[in-house]
Amino acid sequence: MRIAFIGLGIMGSRMAANLARNGFELTVWNRTVERANELAAAHPQVRVSSSPADAAADAEIVITMVVDGPQVRELLLGEEGAALRAAPGTLFIDCSTVGIAEAQAIGAELAERGFGFLDAPVTGSSPRAQDGTLLFMVGGSTEDFERATPALQAMGAKIVHAGPVGQGQAVKVISNSVTAVNATTLAQAVLVAEGLGADVNALIEVMRNGSAGSTMVELKAAPMRDRNFPTLFKLDHMLKDVRLCLEAAHGAGVEFPLAGEAEQVLQAGSEMGLGDEDFAALIRTLEPRTDLAP
Amino acid sequence: MRIAFIGLGIMGSRMAANLARNGFELTVWNRTVERANELAAAHPQVRVSSSPADAAADAEIVITMVVDGPQVRELLLGEEGAALRAAPGTLFIDCSTVGIAEAQAIGAELAERGFGFLDAPVTGSSPRAQDGTLLFMVGGSTEDFERATPALQAMGAKIVHAGPVGQGQAVKVISNSVTAVNATTLAQAVLVAEGLGADVNALIEVMRNGSAGSTMVELKAAPMRDRNFPTLFKLDHMLKDVRLCLEAAHGAGVEFPLAGEAEQVLQAGSEMGLGDEDFAALIRTLEPRTDLAP
Repeated sequence: MRIAFIGLGIMGSRMAANLARNGFELTVWNRTVERANELAAAHPQVRVSSSPADAAADAEIVITMVVDGPQVRELLLGEEGAALRAAPGTLFIDCSTVGIAEAQAIGAELAERGFGFLDAPVTGSSPRAQDGTLLFMVGGSTEDFERATPALQAMGAKIVHAGPVGQGQAVKVISNSVTAVNATTLAQAVLVAEGLGADVNALIEVMRNGSAGSTMVELKAAPMRDRNFPTLFKLDHMLKDVRLCLEAAHGAGVEFPLAGEAEQVLQAGSEMGLGDEDFAALIRTLEPRTDLAP
Repeated sequence: MRIAFIGLGIMGSRMAANLARNGFELTVWNRTVERANELAAAHPQVRVSSSPADAAADAEIVITMVVDGPQVRELLLGEEGAALRAAPGTLFIDCSTVGIAEAQAIGAELAERGFGFLDAPVTGSSPRAQDGTLLFMVGGSTEDFERATPALQAMGAKIVHAGPVGQGQAVKVISNSVTAVNATTLAQAVLVAEGLGADVNALIEVMRNGSAGSTMVELKAAPMRDRNFPTLFKLDHMLKDVRLCLEAAHGAGVEFPLAGEAEQVLQAGSEMGLGDEDFAALIRTLEPRTDLAP
């Protein structure tokens, strides 16, 4: 089976490599052609194409992995977009995080032209993209989901069918908002422990072994304690996901007040210039100011 | 070694039984004497005493496990309190959650009378008390900590020395506040998923396998989804712990805004009459009101 893979960033290049390793024929396109050439040099079954439209021309499945909805829209539906030359019945799988309404709109436009569509955002950062152990949350028909499964399994350890088109996005942005709130809570807890003169290591050990345990405690407690944040997921990307969740919730008339609190903290971090750092750096926005006169 | 154990409630009775099983001689006291008699009937090395003072008379260690600071104060320092007849050098261990300032005040009063003191609150509900797998967070001197360790190991799987007197409380109330915020976040996420028409089971599966994972997701996501809350830890008790944390943080001039949000949700739950239910019932306070005219 031939797959067109569009978008070879930190995540996409690793995902495409796993498809190649698992025996899929790939036609790839990337705005910076060097990334595409590197992949083709490493994998004989990878072919570099000159445009998204060209990449899709003889593919059964077209995968996109880019930053946001406008990019997906341009690469699929734009002047040189993949939909232009794709064969009828081609299945489009977008792995970007674009929000629920945008995924539904793109899916509807593709359906009008006779194409299938799945929104299939991922969780897990570049090490898991590298290992092929990403988690995919997939929205779309059962038929399309089953058609996509072999390709998704080449890139991920867990593939969850979340419902019709858009629900992959819904589950993704809600889940990431929970992550953002848990991280903000952890940061505030570390600062309270410091303020009370408590032993932060004892607190971390207790949280890990008790009801306060979380993936955020495992991944971010030590970086927050040490104020040293290896970048696994950028603060600005987390801010984007939380906003997509809040917009969707607002549109549906439901509230997510704690995600709203996390948004404000992340927003403050972004304004402080921490947007390209790991989101654990949000603790910096909560620290007592030492640069102000009393 | 003889231990006086004061307070045989749901937790205390199970903790005392584990001390007896591990070969400690016990003198026990409980306001409702039937609980003490039951324990003595099941364990030949348990003796029932007529007052806290009486229980402490020939003990090397006095353990209290009750509801709050005023109770601890009365049982140790009141008219028939354990301090009245305890031998010089007796080590008092309070396993209740009483707050940092109260633990420090009680510790200081006992020290004036020549006694040692550890604040050693626990985490883990009655099944872990039963199995002897509680987690103890201990504040006090290293010497007292080492002296207490064999007894604590008979009741717990993990014993963390958190610093001087009061720091066991600090770590406990901060950790429980993180639990409370994580639970509130989870409840809001479940309600957002429902509001968006997303698949709550898919969301739970994704959270469990991704960065949003937490002990709260493991323990409370299904009860919240089903609106069926087996009581492991009462909502009013969680509210108490969060308030103790907020009071201590306020006193130290640090903030814990997300714990403040959780406090308001728990307070609303208590006012709705959910105080004796498991704290997962806090989701009820967040649900869209269906009993009001539009």
